[in-house]
Amino acid sequence: MATPTTCHPAADAHADHDGPHGYSPEKDAYLARMRRIEGQVRGIERMIASDTYCIDVLTQISAVTRALQAVSLGLLEDHLNHCVVGAAKASDKEGREKVAEATAAIARLWKS
Amino acid sequence: MATPTTCHPAADAHADHDGPHGYSPEKDAYLARMRRIEGQVRGIERMIASDTYCIDVLTQISAVTRALQAVSLGLLEDHLNHCVVGAAKASDKEGREKVAEATAAIARLWKS
Amino acid sequence: MATPTTCHPAADAHADHDGPHGYSPEKDAYLARMRRIEGQVRGIERMIASDTYCIDVLTQISAVTRALQAVSLGLLEDHLNHCVVGAAKASDKEGREKVAEATAAIARLWKS
Amino acid sequence: MATPTTCHPAADAHADHDGPHGYSPEKDAYLARMRRIEGQVRGIERMIASDTYCIDVLTQISAVTRALQAVSLGLLEDHLNHCVVGAAKASDKEGREKVAEATAAIARLWKS
Repeated sequence: MATPTTCHPAADAHADHDGPHGYSPEKDAYLARMRRIEGQVRGIERMIASDTYCIDVLTQISAVTRALQAVSLGLLEDHLNHCVVGAAKASDKEGREKVAEATAAIARLWKS
Repeated sequence: MATPTTCHPAADAHADHDGPHGYSPEKDAYLARMRRIEGQVRGIERMIASDTYCIDVLTQISAVTRALQAVSLGLLEDHLNHCVVGAAKASDKEGREKVAEATAAIARLWKS
Repeated sequence: MATPTTCHPAADAHADHDGPHGYSPEKDAYLARMRRIEGQVRGIERMIASDTYCIDVLTQISAVTRALQAVSLGLLEDHLNHCVVGAAKASDKEGREKVAEATAAIARLWKS
Repeated sequence: MATPTTCHPAADAHADHDGPHGYSPEKDAYLARMRRIEGQVRGIERMIASDTYCIDVLTQISAVTRALQAVSLGLLEDHLNHCVVGAAKASDKEGREKVAEATAAIARLWKS
């Protein structure tokens, strides 16, 4: 199986554009979820514009944050299954590099 | 000073609609920040649609989460300054209720 | 009511040592919870020493983190009820300073 | 290379007790870090016992939480490098199972 194009940083992305994608089987589902999140963000704008009670705005921000986190956990699982495992099968060195990169991404998500 | 309307849950919101608002001096700034976040969310949709590298999508989701968190910290600070302090000045009981409610909101944001 | 000594940074703590304390009614309960957390941390040491499955160690670290978070939410609620409200009743300026300080502490806990 | 014993849940752990361990090259370092964290937790107990300013206690709880998080990121990286990659090399099915399990652990750490 060719390594998915989404397994490559931007600079190399054109390398094998015809392979399957890390998250592409789920791509439409992810897009639908992001569009729903976009709608929730607009909902928060309307809440602020109409002077909604602060605590209710905060509750809605929690909901959006949780939805973003669910998307990022899904992307991460796809990334581990496709890109990280694929790299590790190619060579130990590439595997370790991809694991280190994924761990750094997890740390960033965690602190955010 | 009248308690801000944003200091009241929806049911009571019409009680004193002409007072100042908990976050209203900053309302335009919050709206501008939420619109920027909305733009970032749309940017993530475009990244997914064009098969951007998973890790870069995750980095961008971290950025949006951090931006939402900054907004929620700002709203929380305004809420403590106006609504919680205002309630505590009215009565100890009301103060404690508002503090408990704010703490619950902090817990929700934390777990999200 | 005198402002609790725990409402004062270290430098001023001796100012009114005989007043009640921000978290002192709950002090024994907090100490008991921290001792339980200390026991959980020692449990994780034993897990690592005996080569326990990584995922089980991670699950236990999550449990300790959640327990620490519960303690910090309790301390925060006490701090808001006593120190922040007390300062706000003394003067608007002191209230704002304490709210800003508490918000910064919330931000630190959040990013941790 | 034999799969590390720490790559197996407790029930199967005795299966190959003589293999290398997922985190065992780093085991002493992890133990040292956990002992330092245990010392920090005892430090917080002393802070509470001596009525230290709430915000300073919260700052110290943030520091412990961050230290625990750093340990869990290290364990997670070792786990991905050894156990998850090892399972994926054995079979796609085992790889997917280990990735799903690791993702669930990441989600738990996140919400904690």
